[in-house]
Amino acid sequence: MASRTRVVRALRPIAAEARAATALGRWSPASRCFATSATRLLAPSPPRRAKLTTETYPSLKRDERFAQLTEEHVAYFKEVLGSSGSAVIDGVTADAEADLEPFNEDWMHKYKGQCRLVLKPGSTEEVSKILRYCNEKKLAVVPQGGNTGLVGGSVPVFDEIVINMSRMNKIHSFDEVSGSLVADAGCILEVVDGFLAQKGHIFPLDLGAKGSCHIGGNLATNAGGLRLIRYGSLHGSVLGIEAVLPDGTIMNDLGTLRKNNTGYDLKQLHIGAEGTIGIITKVSIQCPQRSSAVNVAFFGLESFEKVQLAFREAKSQLSEILSAFELMDGKSQNLVQRVRSGKKPLEDDHPFYCLIETSGSNGEHDYAKLEAFLEDVMTKEIISDGVVAQDETQLKSLWSWREGIPECLGHWGGTYKYDVSIPIREMYDLVDDVSAKMEEAGLVGETDAHPVVGVVGYGHMGDSNLHLNVAVRRYEEAVEKVLEPYVFEWIAKRSGSISAEHGLGIAKKNFIGYSRDDATIGLMKQIKQLYDPWHMHGHGLGHSRLERSENRKLMDADERPQNGIMNPYKYI
Amino acid sequence: MASRTRVVRALRPIAAEARAATALGRWSPASRCFATSATRLLAPSPPRRAKLTTETYPSLKRDERFAQLTEEHVAYFKEVLGSSGSAVIDGVTADAEADLEPFNEDWMHKYKGQCRLVLKPGSTEEVSKILRYCNEKKLAVVPQGGNTGLVGGSVPVFDEIVINMSRMNKIHSFDEVSGSLVADAGCILEVVDGFLAQKGHIFPLDLGAKGSCHIGGNLATNAGGLRLIRYGSLHGSVLGIEAVLPDGTIMNDLGTLRKNNTGYDLKQLHIGAEGTIGIITKVSIQCPQRSSAVNVAFFGLESFEKVQLAFREAKSQLSEILSAFELMDGKSQNLVQRVRSGKKPLEDDHPFYCLIETSGSNGEHDYAKLEAFLEDVMTKEIISDGVVAQDETQLKSLWSWREGIPECLGHWGGTYKYDVSIPIREMYDLVDDVSAKMEEAGLVGETDAHPVVGVVGYGHMGDSNLHLNVAVRRYEEAVEKVLEPYVFEWIAKRSGSISAEHGLGIAKKNFIGYSRDDATIGLMKQIKQLYDPWHMHGHGLGHSRLERSENRKLMDADERPQNGIMNPYKYI
Repeated sequence: MASRTRVVRALRPIAAEARAATALGRWSPASRCFATSATRLLAPSPPRRAKLTTETYPSLKRDERFAQLTEEHVAYFKEVLGSSGSAVIDGVTADAEADLEPFNEDWMHKYKGQCRLVLKPGSTEEVSKILRYCNEKKLAVVPQGGNTGLVGGSVPVFDEIVINMSRMNKIHSFDEVSGSLVADAGCILEVVDGFLAQKGHIFPLDLGAKGSCHIGGNLATNAGGLRLIRYGSLHGSVLGIEAVLPDGTIMNDLGTLRKNNTGYDLKQLHIGAEGTIGIITKVSIQCPQRSSAVNVAFFGLESFEKVQLAFREAKSQLSEILSAFELMDGKSQNLVQRVRSGKKPLEDDHPFYCLIETSGSNGEHDYAKLEAFLEDVMTKEIISDGVVAQDETQLKSLWSWREGIPECLGHWGGTYKYDVSIPIREMYDLVDDVSAKMEEAGLVGETDAHPVVGVVGYGHMGDSNLHLNVAVRRYEEAVEKVLEPYVFEWIAKRSGSISAEHGLGIAKKNFIGYSRDDATIGLMKQIKQLYDPWHMHGHGLGHSRLERSENRKLMDADERPQNGIMNPYKYI
Repeated sequence: MASRTRVVRALRPIAAEARAATALGRWSPASRCFATSATRLLAPSPPRRAKLTTETYPSLKRDERFAQLTEEHVAYFKEVLGSSGSAVIDGVTADAEADLEPFNEDWMHKYKGQCRLVLKPGSTEEVSKILRYCNEKKLAVVPQGGNTGLVGGSVPVFDEIVINMSRMNKIHSFDEVSGSLVADAGCILEVVDGFLAQKGHIFPLDLGAKGSCHIGGNLATNAGGLRLIRYGSLHGSVLGIEAVLPDGTIMNDLGTLRKNNTGYDLKQLHIGAEGTIGIITKVSIQCPQRSSAVNVAFFGLESFEKVQLAFREAKSQLSEILSAFELMDGKSQNLVQRVRSGKKPLEDDHPFYCLIETSGSNGEHDYAKLEAFLEDVMTKEIISDGVVAQDETQLKSLWSWREGIPECLGHWGGTYKYDVSIPIREMYDLVDDVSAKMEEAGLVGETDAHPVVGVVGYGHMGDSNLHLNVAVRRYEEAVEKVLEPYVFEWIAKRSGSISAEHGLGIAKKNFIGYSRDDATIGLMKQIKQLYDPWHMHGHGLGHSRLERSENRKLMDADERPQNGIMNPYKYI
């Protein structure tokens, strides 16, 4: 009974206080995108403009084998697309540069390309015509979805033509019995999920950028997100794709069935290929039943060992209803609090916090399981304190303490971001080690003399996926020297991944060797060459791919680049 | 209240009767492999011997570019493997042919090869040495796991050397926090699952052949099985593989983490490649928590429309605890009953039966959900009758009415098996249509004059995966003429898959065009050529794959075969 009382003391009053606080404003009526408005409320950072990527990476040189855009090219594209499809052409409109900026620059203002033409195809056939033509004319291209990436993958480096998919945004079919959805690649994740909500289903992926990102981009970058622990990887949930290959060939692998064991599962190569071997134009995906009951708990813990224990217990006791297990260190929550007004969900400070979400078909059952779990981990002293959201507002507010981190960290000027996988036991050690090195180098402090505001860690505990973030007042070489290659070497030693879910893009292109062996990288280069070889004879590839290797004989080895037109300068 | 009473009447008495029946013997103490022993209890079919595959497929010709096995080759293999690793060598032991039979012949007695050498490597390095040597000497090979396949993929056609993986059967590691398991490819599925059971986890795949099949073979054939609806596809749950490529290169992609977005996800190509681009030697896989509570219900329905309704309701109401939804038509159950002694689970005959399994962490909650679901579907008259297993024995017995089908159907002499995916609405129409055609042709009947005993359908409703089975007294051309290409054309018209989970092997090799378009098949051929080109210069490939395309220049186009040594004559 003693333990029971203790748990009740720990949980109930906090829950009650939380309810009261709703009226009093402590629980701010936060939406899932709370952090954005919060940072806007405070003194904003000066508007940032990205440096040209070519300035940041002076070693990158334009491949002069690519053609320069001519009026003849533009005329062709206009003919194919009509006026609505050729978004902006430099020199044609007076404010072309400003119009082009959203397509040339990433949202973190880290990468900026110099494209002069953005094409917005409205159909798979138009994408095919564009790529066939670009291949013939040797015009480099960059496919672009919602442009929400973090590694510079979706913006040009030089003058590559941007092929923006936003006009291909139709939902084609949904089978309410099987749960299979077919939609255009340019559909916005949140829109698709909203459509599915009406049908009692859910898109098997959720992430902070859902209001802007495209589902095609989600596939191309193999996005993981917040609920991978429940709904698994896109490699498992994607049923099929339609893609246009670099030579314009349309690959129709758009099955709507869960099982098709007839040959190599080629669609898998496009999932995570970051637009280097084709443009995904349509997506078929298995959508699970939407849960009618969702609960969120937020708790404090005194060590990472206890976080691991809590995770094990949650997996065991919440099992099939566990839909998220997120980790946030105390330092990240303190920085969020410095940017946001309002109190933190828990009274005291804790070295670690976790957010648990359950999703199930019976609210009573789920709440009973969650309560039993929390009682158990309180009794065992695995967690120090905790609250459970009592309504939708509180639920969203609790989530905002996790989802608000990235935006809040940028408040002081910038963030060095590492999105890495590390075996779960050692997952947090990286934050401690990097923190110690920054302190040693005298880079961390409260004043402007110190570039670093803080070194924090948070992420998807359920997926061994840590976001190591270094919040800075300015990007500075001294900081970078501490970080790289130290972070990569640290991860490689533990057989982790230097890019868990953000991909390679430009940012990680040169570091792939830390996570893949030479044999694997060699094979990847051959796959790229197979799909996107330098085009020689100005004709489409069609079904005669095998003949094409003959064409290559006509080149000398050293004049033969590995890569063709698709998203050059990036990936492998 | 009326409906409540009605449901209670429908469910309770049956459950009670079932309990009583346990004592009386109506519920036979069946295990999951019940069907095997059941069929053995009855008059056994005469022992069958497979015809040579070359007799069944006279158009297949041995590729004379492959070397003939010599004593020098055998001496090399003995040196590499020692005596324990060279299983059987024709001519060395007196009863070589009998010893070789289990490796030459599939368990359905449909395919029989003529290999004279079986190698059983004990390590990845040994596999590497074998393949490197075979590549140099142009010796064709067939990788073999538990040899439980259904399409002739795991046995040789001519004299290919069998590389049997049964000696590589160690479990290397299991992380109880993350749930990641690393094990040798030759581990038997049931053994691995037993190991995981002790750790409170489950292998994310289950199928009838679990007592014999290897997990490496499961990956190579992308097995789906009974619980794909819950645990998803291997493309989602496999974390990494170690594989030896045809030239002996060891590809180490054996990560244990759920996220690694650094380049093309090449391991995916091996999942479902049926051993044509390498031999999987180790597997890293994400294992879910094992459910402490498992319930099984079995019910009868009057139409396939009602089956679909029941499936929708089950998905909606049982949602996160639903772990299997299996379909069996009345005809299949009648045939099973003719072979087995004992009564069927339900008193009356029904056109369709479904088996539902729930797995969850709280037995009370699960039973409440299941009961509410059954009450609902009874009230709505979606199901006609039903029982719920009251204990483990009944649970296994109910499962045996589903899992016993394949063995029982073989009782009369043989079975034509089609494992196909069809959009769920039309899924059962195939059985009706084939049935009608067989009747029309006068092939179905009770006497020996009729080759066909019955045309039945069953399968994984949750995955739109139908097993169309034609039980026959003998394999006869008249039956085959009705079946093919009719079945394939029927499926292609509905964008289904001609092989949902059994793969291509020899059986479906020539029919891939019914489920894949030319562009996709062309790419597959190029992938095969990339991984397994005809070897020219007697040196390993290592990291110099790109250089190798140079070597190909030395060949004339028409002397260049697409395929190298790995599992020739099959797949694409």
